[in-house]
Amino acid sequence: MRITISQLNLHIGNFEGNLAKMLAAVETAKSQHSDLICFPELAVCGYPARDFFEFDDFIRRCQHSVEELRKVSQDIGIIVGSPTRNPVLAGKDLYNSAYFLYNGEILGIQHKALLPTYDIFDEYRYFEPAKEFKTIEFKGKRIALVICEDIWNVGDINPLYTICPLDEMMPQKPDFIVNISASPFDYAHAEARIRTVRANVERYKIPMFYANQVGGQTDVIFDGGSLVVSPDGLVFDEMPYFEECLKTYELDAVVGGNQNHEQPKDKIKLIHDALVVGIHDYFQKLGFKKAILGLSGGIDSAITAVLATKALGAENVRVLLMPSQFSSGHSVDDAKLLAETLGIQYDIVAIKPMYDAFETALKAQFAGQAFNVTEENIQARIRGTLLMAMSNKFGNILLNTTNKSEMSVGYGTLYGDMCGGIAVLGDVYKTEIYELVKYLNKDGEVVPQNTITKPPSAELRPGQKDTDSLPPYEVLDPLLFQYIECRKGPDELIAMGFEEALVKRVLRMVNINEFKREQAAPVIRVSTKAFGMGRRMPIVGKYLS
Amino acid sequence: MRITISQLNLHIGNFEGNLAKMLAAVETAKSQHSDLICFPELAVCGYPARDFFEFDDFIRRCQHSVEELRKVSQDIGIIVGSPTRNPVLAGKDLYNSAYFLYNGEILGIQHKALLPTYDIFDEYRYFEPAKEFKTIEFKGKRIALVICEDIWNVGDINPLYTICPLDEMMPQKPDFIVNISASPFDYAHAEARIRTVRANVERYKIPMFYANQVGGQTDVIFDGGSLVVSPDGLVFDEMPYFEECLKTYELDAVVGGNQNHEQPKDKIKLIHDALVVGIHDYFQKLGFKKAILGLSGGIDSAITAVLATKALGAENVRVLLMPSQFSSGHSVDDAKLLAETLGIQYDIVAIKPMYDAFETALKAQFAGQAFNVTEENIQARIRGTLLMAMSNKFGNILLNTTNKSEMSVGYGTLYGDMCGGIAVLGDVYKTEIYELVKYLNKDGEVVPQNTITKPPSAELRPGQKDTDSLPPYEVLDPLLFQYIECRKGPDELIAMGFEEALVKRVLRMVNINEFKREQAAPVIRVSTKAFGMGRRMPIVGKYLS
Repeated sequence: MRITISQLNLHIGNFEGNLAKMLAAVETAKSQHSDLICFPELAVCGYPARDFFEFDDFIRRCQHSVEELRKVSQDIGIIVGSPTRNPVLAGKDLYNSAYFLYNGEILGIQHKALLPTYDIFDEYRYFEPAKEFKTIEFKGKRIALVICEDIWNVGDINPLYTICPLDEMMPQKPDFIVNISASPFDYAHAEARIRTVRANVERYKIPMFYANQVGGQTDVIFDGGSLVVSPDGLVFDEMPYFEECLKTYELDAVVGGNQNHEQPKDKIKLIHDALVVGIHDYFQKLGFKKAILGLSGGIDSAITAVLATKALGAENVRVLLMPSQFSSGHSVDDAKLLAETLGIQYDIVAIKPMYDAFETALKAQFAGQAFNVTEENIQARIRGTLLMAMSNKFGNILLNTTNKSEMSVGYGTLYGDMCGGIAVLGDVYKTEIYELVKYLNKDGEVVPQNTITKPPSAELRPGQKDTDSLPPYEVLDPLLFQYIECRKGPDELIAMGFEEALVKRVLRMVNINEFKREQAAPVIRVSTKAFGMGRRMPIVGKYLS
Repeated sequence: MRITISQLNLHIGNFEGNLAKMLAAVETAKSQHSDLICFPELAVCGYPARDFFEFDDFIRRCQHSVEELRKVSQDIGIIVGSPTRNPVLAGKDLYNSAYFLYNGEILGIQHKALLPTYDIFDEYRYFEPAKEFKTIEFKGKRIALVICEDIWNVGDINPLYTICPLDEMMPQKPDFIVNISASPFDYAHAEARIRTVRANVERYKIPMFYANQVGGQTDVIFDGGSLVVSPDGLVFDEMPYFEECLKTYELDAVVGGNQNHEQPKDKIKLIHDALVVGIHDYFQKLGFKKAILGLSGGIDSAITAVLATKALGAENVRVLLMPSQFSSGHSVDDAKLLAETLGIQYDIVAIKPMYDAFETALKAQFAGQAFNVTEENIQARIRGTLLMAMSNKFGNILLNTTNKSEMSVGYGTLYGDMCGGIAVLGDVYKTEIYELVKYLNKDGEVVPQNTITKPPSAELRPGQKDTDSLPPYEVLDPLLFQYIECRKGPDELIAMGFEEALVKRVLRMVNINEFKREQAAPVIRVSTKAFGMGRRMPIVGKYLS
């Protein structure tokens, strides 16, 4: 038996586009004499479709795509993910299902049992969990068909669910497992995924074909890396990351095993690739081509410009240099040098005339008040307004350049430097930014050395440095990581050796700035806990604030 | 037996504050010779605490509050909501529980079985559903103790869940039901709540004591309206809406029934009261006193100013009048008249000098480009920057004045008139705005007649009217309601009589503006489907766009 995995970059709600990709893949699989092609979870509509699932019309369109695939299933089995309606009145109205189509018939439908409802996931919002588990007989083999999370309860010391769907199927003696997934990227996830697939294969002693989605869906990035794991626990094949792929495997060879094609993983390379695909797909799926951003001469905007140029091409990236009266001469020079190296269009627009106009306009109201963060914010908002004007006039989407450290502690101006369609670096801590820039410069200097070595500064008042109001990033970032990614409370943090006053100060900064993050641009998710849908915090909460 | 309901305005994560309120209520109940006091769902920490539940430290603090209540339970039973830890490894780590404390002991703990995970609710994200249902024996009576959603599967023709917890308890022959809730407001909810409580009482033929939370938690408003319903199905008592309340009832009198104290409901009064409490509590819970907003002479900002004055007092509301070169003379006069009527401080800051500065700064880049929405947006963003400057300098929170119709179709400038800490009218359609203004003016003209009667306009270009780019609101709003609140698709909408071209145009406008709403201020929720956490839509989705 020959089995094809089709790792596809799907687009939420783009039924025609997704169907066209799947029909082409079926043709290719047929030409490779495949018996069975496997598409990702909820492939007909893309993942995560969120509240589109509440529209009957949306479900009808999903069903229509399944119908079209059924028509082309002559001589080839097709496994495809789609929502299906729950025929029973009691319970949620939908299931998250895998269809098995063959010769124009529906050979079986298996619903998902384990519905992730944590971090970015909301599946219990829409779906009823499966209660029945039936293997599917196909050409003399029995297939255990499961969906994404269904295999993730195996090997967990504190399992989230009370059952393992494959345990329920094993009495039916399946020959192999097919898992269709929409398993999102974070820099630790590929290794966790291989560990989990292997734990299942070792538990059940049959091979697994694991088909994942790939590509960016705004904040959530799918990395692909679909897997074939043999009963000996070795990775028979691991598909590429961040790109589409179709491959056909001979079942007997997979059963035979004795091949290890596991790829090495590098955290910073994974983050880099995820950010590039995240930018690219955000633009492509919205139907835009061109980006704009503010280039300050600092490291965050420099990296964002490099990534945007890789994702969209130099001809599609435009930058504004917007020096203030407090900007160093170096800043403009560094930014110009980078723009010239990248070959992207740049304009210099000094913000002082607008700043002066605001100062004059508010003279009466601000009489007797000292210069403070208000005036810093006015400058940042003038920049935001200039960038958005360019965006509106020329149809360029503004890229936000805020990093995760700043976003955590609220070191940024809402409606100023927090503007943008998507926050490219919002899930990358400042200390990781420095690793990322080394990676970008590994084959020759792209980001100027001066941009990397100078002390970080917003340059919004004379001689300002980030460390005037923040702890050094080498101290701040590990604390933020323990609080945000690991959800450690103050007692645990102090027990870990963080200084008590610092813990209180930083946790308070994080918590009182929830109102800013609520209005932030969507953040491309690369860690296990990004700001956005995966982290839902009350604004009026008084906890640790 | 005497039973007390304590309807409290709790504050998320404010353990000391919540505990102090409960301790005071216990004292009052004792002084009223009560046998049993009932606090709302998750009262120790406030609702919705969202991802705070992922912090062990947060759970420990909840447990600490329960301990403190246990200590004061001499001679009085205390029912209080708190998260508890799931002692079993498999499954979620927490339960959403009701403690029954008495004489320093824990007489029982009942977990919640039906976990709402729709609209604003995310309970399955944190909690394992109850599998055991035990009534509690107390002073010779058996009490069926349930939590909020646990009673909502009764009387639903398409029930969301497959069980009714009270069905499971009835074989134990309880004498009465206690339901502790955190049941949020929408303008149709109080009636639905009474209907549901009554359906339960009629099904089980025993009385119900229903204790609800009250007050605003950013976007989500709790309306109170706690209930005592007698076995005859009559509302023995209905507590006030939008305020705290404590009352003690004689069980025998409740069983006797034959009293109907159901209050009349008026949609617009409910919305009005919810918005006032929403503003008030947002400020109070964040520790702020003073608001600022832009007063345009139009109806939305006028209403917002009136509501803010009611919520915060005239001395705490300040407004900016920011005429552009396109503003009519009337606009400033109407705004001044309103500010003087309300007795709030106002300043006039013309935006032309700043607009001119932006125009000059971008002259080279915009050469040969016609005036378009870009220039309109620059003006809106200058206003946003001025308002935020006042906010930053004087510590006033900016109130956003966008209405739901505009927010739906993206008729507003991101980082411009979409700025603000909280969107007061973001869940009120323009046609409802006109009903609301009638209510505000019912005892004498507060909002000037001219503000009400003139055609809506953003005044960002010469002679602009909303209807230049939008259908009339009487046509637009019913269509938006069917799409947003009722989730009707294009075919259903056309079948309902909406014109096909209009349906396509409006649905596309709603969907392509998801990126703006993603960055909008939190919206005070008054309808069954508000923008924000209750409506989760993909940004890169290509559905109906």
